[in-house]
Amino acid sequence: MNDTTRTVRLSVDCMGGDHGPSVTLPACRSFLDRHPDAELVLVGTEQALAPAAGWARCRMVIASEVVEMDDPVEVALRKKRDSSMRVAIQQVKPDGNGVTMADACVSAGNTGALMAVARYLLKTLDGIDRPAIASVMPNQHDGFTTMLDLGANVDCSAEHLLQFAVMGSALVSAVDGKEAPTVGLLNIGEEAIKGNETIKRAGELLRAVSAAGHINFHGNVEGNDIFKGTTDLVVCDGFVGNVALKTAEGLAGMITSFLKQEFTRTPLTKMVAMLAMPMLKRFSRRLDHRRFNGAALLGLRGLVFKSHGSADALAFENALNRAYDAARNRLLDRVHDRILATLQALPGAGTTAANEPPAARHAA
Amino acid sequence: MNDTTRTVRLSVDCMGGDHGPSVTLPACRSFLDRHPDAELVLVGTEQALAPAAGWARCRMVIASEVVEMDDPVEVALRKKRDSSMRVAIQQVKPDGNGVTMADACVSAGNTGALMAVARYLLKTLDGIDRPAIASVMPNQHDGFTTMLDLGANVDCSAEHLLQFAVMGSALVSAVDGKEAPTVGLLNIGEEAIKGNETIKRAGELLRAVSAAGHINFHGNVEGNDIFKGTTDLVVCDGFVGNVALKTAEGLAGMITSFLKQEFTRTPLTKMVAMLAMPMLKRFSRRLDHRRFNGAALLGLRGLVFKSHGSADALAFENALNRAYDAARNRLLDRVHDRILATLQALPGAGTTAANEPPAARHAA
Repeated sequence: MNDTTRTVRLSVDCMGGDHGPSVTLPACRSFLDRHPDAELVLVGTEQALAPAAGWARCRMVIASEVVEMDDPVEVALRKKRDSSMRVAIQQVKPDGNGVTMADACVSAGNTGALMAVARYLLKTLDGIDRPAIASVMPNQHDGFTTMLDLGANVDCSAEHLLQFAVMGSALVSAVDGKEAPTVGLLNIGEEAIKGNETIKRAGELLRAVSAAGHINFHGNVEGNDIFKGTTDLVVCDGFVGNVALKTAEGLAGMITSFLKQEFTRTPLTKMVAMLAMPMLKRFSRRLDHRRFNGAALLGLRGLVFKSHGSADALAFENALNRAYDAARNRLLDRVHDRILATLQALPGAGTTAANEPPAARHAA
Repeated sequence: MNDTTRTVRLSVDCMGGDHGPSVTLPACRSFLDRHPDAELVLVGTEQALAPAAGWARCRMVIASEVVEMDDPVEVALRKKRDSSMRVAIQQVKPDGNGVTMADACVSAGNTGALMAVARYLLKTLDGIDRPAIASVMPNQHDGFTTMLDLGANVDCSAEHLLQFAVMGSALVSAVDGKEAPTVGLLNIGEEAIKGNETIKRAGELLRAVSAAGHINFHGNVEGNDIFKGTTDLVVCDGFVGNVALKTAEGLAGMITSFLKQEFTRTPLTKMVAMLAMPMLKRFSRRLDHRRFNGAALLGLRGLVFKSHGSADALAFENALNRAYDAARNRLLDRVHDRILATLQALPGAGTTAANEPPAARHAA
């Protein structure tokens, strides 16, 4: 099934993010140059897309409106029906014959609007109650720890956490090539008796599904395990995940600014900083959040990736890369298959679910 | 009421923590030297306390048992009734005349056991449903952000979060001398409509109490605001707080190890590291978690401080300092007064509470 010869086609909301086409178009250009087997559907206003006129392996779809970064969800959902965000997502929605215009969509638009519009247009997969947002954090092995949910769901049941574990496992297997990624349940202690009732029940479900071989459950992990890389995947509710993510961003920012302050304190320290520049640069590169850009919206009947709103061209290109890898490695099929298998493993749970595959081939 | 002439007396569980008396006794010695107005009650086995024989301003209380770091809570609570932890806490419990043997207790023993024994022996203050654990994190202003709860309560109601805000405000006012510390409610967005139902309701309570002048509520804050120092105090439930704390610890550890790796990669980078040593040392000092050691167990009828189990003598001495500051500045009275005022400000809430002051003077 690893059909490496087929073309991967991404739809791109070129207007989203803090910088719009001044960032998205250069990123798209560079992405096309590096991926000769990729095609893009560029979505935006006629004027914004003008610089891309004549690009090979590129199609333009004009959208007359733009979802602003501070637009309320309702505006994105109900008012701006011809927004670049909405039209870009529309490209990954299967038509009556199961054919899509693109394999995955990428937008740097505001997260709430993107999730709402994607959910409205695409609907959730059978067996999934709620979509979730998954992204990666760097870890001590110079690898990545994938984490979800990062803010889509502020209240989660044990069943939701189980679904996150299954979807996250599919993501890691598709993007990082690990067939049985280890799963950690974020908790406040390693022992199974720790945590609130939801977490304990989620632990039970995860152990049951792991025993049946559908995920590879490691057990509880704590906040520090994200960076230790104790597990490939860390599962939590969206409130906790969002706090952890932003706490990490805040601390990284503070540490970087402390380091800069110490090395620019006096003319002498500035001289030493010049000597230390290669080390400081390598150090910064290992923490560079642009390398981790590109969160997956999982659980929808179509692949949607979210870039950080403040992304520069390098960061946005990384989001394109992640969407490309996910589409190339059939993430949608993987999520579908894993959810189906998991539901069947849970006695009495969700037998109504998922037996038609969601996978759709894009229009030629 | 700021009676700076009176003696402050701390009881110290000398056996607690990973290192026991080899850390606690040197810390106590140094603390006594720096605080001529302080006295200590050293609690431990006869053998362990032998090196402190003859120390001025020091009394020894022998306890025959030790709560080990991995002892279950029940063992600490029901089996080891003569543990150094329990006896040390007992020193801050008022007798029938409201007299205590010490003003605050410090232990590096295991958190669950310490909280359980302290709660059992001391009981909670009127108006407080659950004690909470408060500690500080460094922020970008080179100050501290106080945060609670850090793990005592995995499920919190809006009322609990309000109580945490009130107790935390009392702590910041006592230890940092800010009379109206700003309070942030940890959430996943700044807007009042963000978060789950508990958080939204907590926001309403905090706004009401702030309008009545009993706390200084800033509004919602996000994970990155902890390190920005947006507010003096950040309030959250114990699950979220514990995850944020451990995420921060894990990331700080990773960043430090990345920096070390880059500067020790080759003989050349090691030479540059020697030149950069003053900057790297200043940098490390700003992040040194030993400076932040000493968490307060708030909401009990007695002051108990928890040192990190792995604390060295410098870190343990900082925990003693924090307990000293809290006792010197009448933290217990402050918590009591603030809770009382707050409850009276809430229409219909808790009118049964707190009118006898919990403050007790220690035995002469």
